[in-house]
Amino acid sequence: MGRRIGVIGVGGIGGYYGALLQRSGQDVHFLLRRDYDHVRQNGLVIQSVNGDFALPQVQAYNRAEVMPPCDLVIVAIKATENHRLPSLLVPLLHPETIVVLLQNGLDAEPLLSQALGTVPLIGGLCFICTTRIAPGHIHHQDYGSVLLAQYQTGYQPCGITPALVTVAETFQAAGIPTETSEDLLRSRWQKLVWNIPFNALAVILNAKTDALMADPQLVDLIRDIMQEVTATATAYGREIPDQFIADRLVHTQHMKPYTPSTKVDFDAGRELEVEAIWGNPYRAAQKIGIPTPHLAMLYRQMAFLNAHRPQ
Amino acid sequence: MGRRIGVIGVGGIGGYYGALLQRSGQDVHFLLRRDYDHVRQNGLVIQSVNGDFALPQVQAYNRAEVMPPCDLVIVAIKATENHRLPSLLVPLLHPETIVVLLQNGLDAEPLLSQALGTVPLIGGLCFICTTRIAPGHIHHQDYGSVLLAQYQTGYQPCGITPALVTVAETFQAAGIPTETSEDLLRSRWQKLVWNIPFNALAVILNAKTDALMADPQLVDLIRDIMQEVTATATAYGREIPDQFIADRLVHTQHMKPYTPSTKVDFDAGRELEVEAIWGNPYRAAQKIGIPTPHLAMLYRQMAFLNAHRPQ
Repeated sequence: MGRRIGVIGVGGIGGYYGALLQRSGQDVHFLLRRDYDHVRQNGLVIQSVNGDFALPQVQAYNRAEVMPPCDLVIVAIKATENHRLPSLLVPLLHPETIVVLLQNGLDAEPLLSQALGTVPLIGGLCFICTTRIAPGHIHHQDYGSVLLAQYQTGYQPCGITPALVTVAETFQAAGIPTETSEDLLRSRWQKLVWNIPFNALAVILNAKTDALMADPQLVDLIRDIMQEVTATATAYGREIPDQFIADRLVHTQHMKPYTPSTKVDFDAGRELEVEAIWGNPYRAAQKIGIPTPHLAMLYRQMAFLNAHRPQ
Repeated sequence: MGRRIGVIGVGGIGGYYGALLQRSGQDVHFLLRRDYDHVRQNGLVIQSVNGDFALPQVQAYNRAEVMPPCDLVIVAIKATENHRLPSLLVPLLHPETIVVLLQNGLDAEPLLSQALGTVPLIGGLCFICTTRIAPGHIHHQDYGSVLLAQYQTGYQPCGITPALVTVAETFQAAGIPTETSEDLLRSRWQKLVWNIPFNALAVILNAKTDALMADPQLVDLIRDIMQEVTATATAYGREIPDQFIADRLVHTQHMKPYTPSTKVDFDAGRELEVEAIWGNPYRAAQKIGIPTPHLAMLYRQMAFLNAHRPQ
């Protein structure tokens, strides 16, 4: 057996990466809620552009208290559930545990870090399209890389740490394309440059990326939104050049038509990560005095749609 | 027989007001497209909060060329059809004809006025909830007042003119609560203060006025949008005090749940009045140098939804 890894949350992200880690020989323990019975009996099925595979037997749990302490804990629940994390994590920690938070958005780490004390916390951003389409059944449609960076108080950059290298090597050994960053906050803002406009507009306008990119006026709007995000990042000392925006737009133009995760959640009637992706960045902009009227409007529109979403 | 009145467009607005005018003894001639056969044979049915009534016989036409010249022509087609107006109006004009344009939005009059030459043009704003629910069947749900003001080149205020008084008296004699304004542009901007946020957000957020007003964050957004509209109006010399915004919000709070006309159109798969309600006001703001990021975003969102609306 390899390294002992706990996976909290077995949706598209946790199920896919957890399965890859188990397949690579690690000792993976999955914490589930709604799919617990099914996965305990039937394991996981991964339907992937990189090749399908099944794990008929996985170590499944429905309570953190009965799980063993882990060397690595991967948190892949929705950001809307983060208030549950302290109690879920405590039973899984030992003196050398590293926690990896695979989520979009801003400001989850400061809160989680308070609960973790000295446990190293790695923030992770997934560039992937993967969805749980049935209990224990994960459909990995495209992409798959992960960007990892260590968190320290106040999102101060802390370079390439031993904990970060350990996690990256574990991921890479499982065939996960993994990069590391010295500055988690910069990476989070860079990802938000894309998520803030596209995840919102896909919901608001009921469209995939290709339809959004086909409307020149809408591309102008997306660029305006992105510039508010980069202006805010710059105010926090993370300058993001205009070329980054141009590159993201060109990249999106050439992507296969893509449904952002928030739109997948919306169509499934699930709670949206409104605060993580729009609320916290908006408040960050307010706090440092950067005007972001587009972001403000997206935030309020998404909050309304989340509160009134079809159940 | 009374005054000869032509009604171009027999939807919720033209059907309701035209029927009231005929019932009051005027000689009304209706120009229709899709409902021509039905209305010619069966007339109009008005289902109204003020009392239902039917007009089994109306003078219906499907071509302007066969209509008689009229003393008064009421234009009640959608703003998206305004390019058809010059050819529709010419056969209906005589030396004393007055034209009344019952539409929301901005900048229809300057174009129409060029085609009309010296014919007096009255702009009208309807505060009404009325819908064509079947051929020749109009459902008047609530409200019903009309605000009229004469147009002259460049939206210069032209006071209470004889033509304006004539139209207002004709409407009032038909039981239509009618007010007059000395300044059409001010009245149009005042109406836009409400239509720009509510007509857009009802579509974007799939909600009626009551749901929008129940979300305090969204009311903040609506107020921000309204302030961009009043700032633009002010730059054009039509100051609208903040109290006007506060009053509109209180009024909307106490209204019966209301579905704005754009949302009715959207749900019916009809083309939306995007340029009249959002595009022209946005360009007016751009032209005079007033920043309106919220309006810009609503315009682009509505243009996208219009282009991709379910048919």
